[in-house]
Amino acid sequence: MTSRKAIRSQGVDGLSAYLEKQRKLVEKALAKAMPAASARPITIHAAMRYSVLGGGKRLRPILVLAAAEAVDFERAENLPSILPAACAVELIHTYSLIHDDLPCMDNDDLRRGRPTSHKVYGEGVAILTGDALLTRAFALLAEITPAKRYPLSILLQETAVAAGSLQLIAGQVADLEAEGRKLKIADVRFIHERKTAAMIVLSLRLGAMIANATPGQLKAVTQFGEALGLAFQIIDDILDVTQSSQQLGKSAGKDLKASKATYPAVIGLEASRKEADRLTKKALSALKGLGSKSTRLAQIADQLLGRSS
Amino acid sequence: MTSRKAIRSQGVDGLSAYLEKQRKLVEKALAKAMPAASARPITIHAAMRYSVLGGGKRLRPILVLAAAEAVDFERAENLPSILPAACAVELIHTYSLIHDDLPCMDNDDLRRGRPTSHKVYGEGVAILTGDALLTRAFALLAEITPAKRYPLSILLQETAVAAGSLQLIAGQVADLEAEGRKLKIADVRFIHERKTAAMIVLSLRLGAMIANATPGQLKAVTQFGEALGLAFQIIDDILDVTQSSQQLGKSAGKDLKASKATYPAVIGLEASRKEADRLTKKALSALKGLGSKSTRLAQIADQLLGRSS
Repeated sequence: MTSRKAIRSQGVDGLSAYLEKQRKLVEKALAKAMPAASARPITIHAAMRYSVLGGGKRLRPILVLAAAEAVDFERAENLPSILPAACAVELIHTYSLIHDDLPCMDNDDLRRGRPTSHKVYGEGVAILTGDALLTRAFALLAEITPAKRYPLSILLQETAVAAGSLQLIAGQVADLEAEGRKLKIADVRFIHERKTAAMIVLSLRLGAMIANATPGQLKAVTQFGEALGLAFQIIDDILDVTQSSQQLGKSAGKDLKASKATYPAVIGLEASRKEADRLTKKALSALKGLGSKSTRLAQIADQLLGRSS
Repeated sequence: MTSRKAIRSQGVDGLSAYLEKQRKLVEKALAKAMPAASARPITIHAAMRYSVLGGGKRLRPILVLAAAEAVDFERAENLPSILPAACAVELIHTYSLIHDDLPCMDNDDLRRGRPTSHKVYGEGVAILTGDALLTRAFALLAEITPAKRYPLSILLQETAVAAGSLQLIAGQVADLEAEGRKLKIADVRFIHERKTAAMIVLSLRLGAMIANATPGQLKAVTQFGEALGLAFQIIDDILDVTQSSQQLGKSAGKDLKASKATYPAVIGLEASRKEADRLTKKALSALKGLGSKSTRLAQIADQLLGRSS
């Protein structure tokens, strides 16, 4: 069920339609999750909408929904209980991008094909917009209907830890400190696991927990997420080298130029491709215990790896 | 019970000892609430500790504890259920100060008598330290033992709204936008109610809700907090004009210089003092329905106003 050939035989067309359907669900929920555009001060709410509703693959919210399906399809269909979690992870992701793009961090002018928040609204409002999105994410968690095994306190705790100083923020700090230094692959991995994989693991775990996963199911999606999250970031590193800014929607080739923490910079393109492939296979094999309900997760992983080949 | 003379007759000494005892409780809990200093990356955890454990009156956490006492003394004594909320409001307050002090916001070099976070750790780490403290605050909410009437979802929602783009962050954005403009008193009030009073009201409400307040009790502490919070900020504005930087522990006279949003700048010192006095009386009268258990809240309000006279 989880060999890559078997996954593809189930049809990429089916996957595209699925992703598009889920993306639309998420877009609608995100728009609803934003405070009214007319609320004072208008600037901050315009800036929140600009960054959140400005496109993006919505990978993390789709993983929330797909992980819930992989555990319990009927529970996953109960959208009012699960969409707030899907929106929350996207808002945390968006806030982290806004702050990462600031002049004192990665100093990026382009994001999702458009000028970054600080370019449009200035640094002060951009910082506050990130703060507001992070805060709004936690408000959304309060709207979840938790399942029996995982009360709100657990969902809240997991989210705050994944987004906190030991995970997401640890990755960003380590990335900042890495600039200009000679890195080992373990250093790059430390950063990727925290800056990227932690939120992907969180997305999958939130979805699984809201669907009342058994401990075994939760372990399976966690292992899937750890391997997928790292593979995903390595592929992003590879694309930064091989694609143009236009294809990426953000400044290309920047990572190598600034001698940033990337796999290609440390172990080269070919070894990076192999590592991404190995991790994707590892991710797929972690899904075994979940059975056929996890096909969507497998297809998503397969498509993400496919980007680099 | 709530006339200012009656409050003072109960002894300022008793209040000083009470505040000192509560402050120590809070300091200890805050130190425990920080991730280990040895956790990687060391920088962010040092920066979190630097800002959080660097002194401060701990007014907001003390209000959490005092509001709980005003509702149900025995519940207020159950510290493991209430100290996480006290720490959470202090972490949110500290994060907001770190971000407010940044060069692109208020550009302040001095806070609580020491160099500001970005002066010590640089702008990038200072922004991430604020982010980490805000995130940690939400993790702490998960440790509260909620009372029957107010489940965790309510406490979480209230916190996120008070700290969000319609309250705390709205105040900061409006303050940023006010710089250099000619303001009306309603504009200054809009900012103060959001930037200062919202978190003071939240502190009181969290304490009252964890102590399982009746709707009437919750309304009383809310009205107390709205008046006290505004009075508190007006007094801060007054002190900025009348005291030196050394007395304040932060840069003095800055507000008038930058034609910032303050009561003295718009209505003058004397009218500002009168308004602070009027609001403090209003705050005290809101406590009436709570009876003698609210003496501590009344004493705290009286002492805060006393600072300006």
